[in-house]
Amino acid sequence: MIPLDDRGLLLGDGLFETLLAIDGMIADIEAHLDRMAAGCGALGLPDLDRAAARALCFSVAPARGRAAIRLTLTAGSGGRGLDRPSEIVPRLRASFALSAPIETPATLVVARTRRNEGSAASRHKTLAYLDNVLARAEARAAGADEAVMLNNAGHLACSAAANLFWIEGERLLTPALDCGVLAGITRARVLAAARTAGVEVLEVVAGAERLQAAEAVFLTNSLIGVRPVSALNGQTLSPHGLTERLRLSIA
Amino acid sequence: MIPLDDRGLLLGDGLFETLLAIDGMIADIEAHLDRMAAGCGALGLPDLDRAAARALCFSVAPARGRAAIRLTLTAGSGGRGLDRPSEIVPRLRASFALSAPIETPATLVVARTRRNEGSAASRHKTLAYLDNVLARAEARAAGADEAVMLNNAGHLACSAAANLFWIEGERLLTPALDCGVLAGITRARVLAAARTAGVEVLEVVAGAERLQAAEAVFLTNSLIGVRPVSALNGQTLSPHGLTERLRLSIA
Repeated sequence: MIPLDDRGLLLGDGLFETLLAIDGMIADIEAHLDRMAAGCGALGLPDLDRAAARALCFSVAPARGRAAIRLTLTAGSGGRGLDRPSEIVPRLRASFALSAPIETPATLVVARTRRNEGSAASRHKTLAYLDNVLARAEARAAGADEAVMLNNAGHLACSAAANLFWIEGERLLTPALDCGVLAGITRARVLAAARTAGVEVLEVVAGAERLQAAEAVFLTNSLIGVRPVSALNGQTLSPHGLTERLRLSIA
Repeated sequence: MIPLDDRGLLLGDGLFETLLAIDGMIADIEAHLDRMAAGCGALGLPDLDRAAARALCFSVAPARGRAAIRLTLTAGSGGRGLDRPSEIVPRLRASFALSAPIETPATLVVARTRRNEGSAASRHKTLAYLDNVLARAEARAAGADEAVMLNNAGHLACSAAANLFWIEGERLLTPALDCGVLAGITRARVLAAARTAGVEVLEVVAGAERLQAAEAVFLTNSLIGVRPVSALNGQTLSPHGLTERLRLSIA
């Protein structure tokens, strides 16, 4: 339970991480803690208590099976209004949900709801995730699995809950971080794996038409790894060998 | 207390209102409930239970004194991830804080953090208010009281916790709602009062330079009413007769 005066609840003032646990082991936990610590710095919150956060995650990770761990950090209790209290005492909580791997490709539509590239929050996993909820709801209403989000300049940013990649020729492309993109842990692993394999990689500022013209599209996050995309705005996309190679290389 | 699986806490999926209570009376309560009900529609949440929301507000309003009532509506408990559950059961909570009237003018700076004009959420008081928290923190760090927020197109939107007005000649100007502006209840009252008084009123798309060149600037919200601005980015602004007439007309 969380008290009603918690700023995470009242204002979205906080951060979260979603981690993959398999049989009690947590994938990339230090990278997730690094990212949450960086988020604390960017949002002006106190330094992350890494030991407490790590212990919380392990305390909820089930000993058997595949689970998504949700780590939540709030700016703690505060007085009325936007101003933070002079002493911020963050609140850390963790929970888990069993999570079967997703074996099917995703269908995407481009959402009307935009990412806010003009806020530092757009580069972090904050508790103020309503725009992503709205984008996902648009995708579901259109019969698709997931939403492509553009920023206000009309440039590709991400999907509602994953990073976005596409293939042009044998080149791998993904939106640049300053388009309002979360620095995904799987995104970084995919970029590194591609470079190691000698694949040309570009982080770009590009409109939705680039995605529409791509040979293949895929999504990445900590739970899905690399997930191929089978349709974009109703137009079919074929499987691609490079997507499969990258999927296997980070699995 | 709120359970840890509440979507308001986890994702900012919800709405709030801040209402002014004086000696147990609540100003404009039906307008506040109208706005929350409109927000529920815009965000795809179930219809607001107005009777429950109204009763909650009155149950926390102190019998004596001036108080800010915070009414919070969340999308309720849900499973993991962005998708809302098939049946949403919203959670309504209210609290209050004693709140003295603010008698001093405000000092403003233009913040780097932008409003997300590309999301429907920017026209509603949602629990995903972190951009406004960050803008306010920028203002405080610069020694000012409040932040002016531009949208990603560089157009004036609002301040972190109030609507924004300025005076050019004897004309009253305020950003148009589709710049990413909350439809403030006091904003609407000021616009109506000005029109009734024969003042020309313009809802405009304008950059920060218009504010910098204005004869006077003021802020409005339900707690402060009309609050004059005495400085913008360190440049002094003088009191103005029209600001004072509007302040008195809605008091």
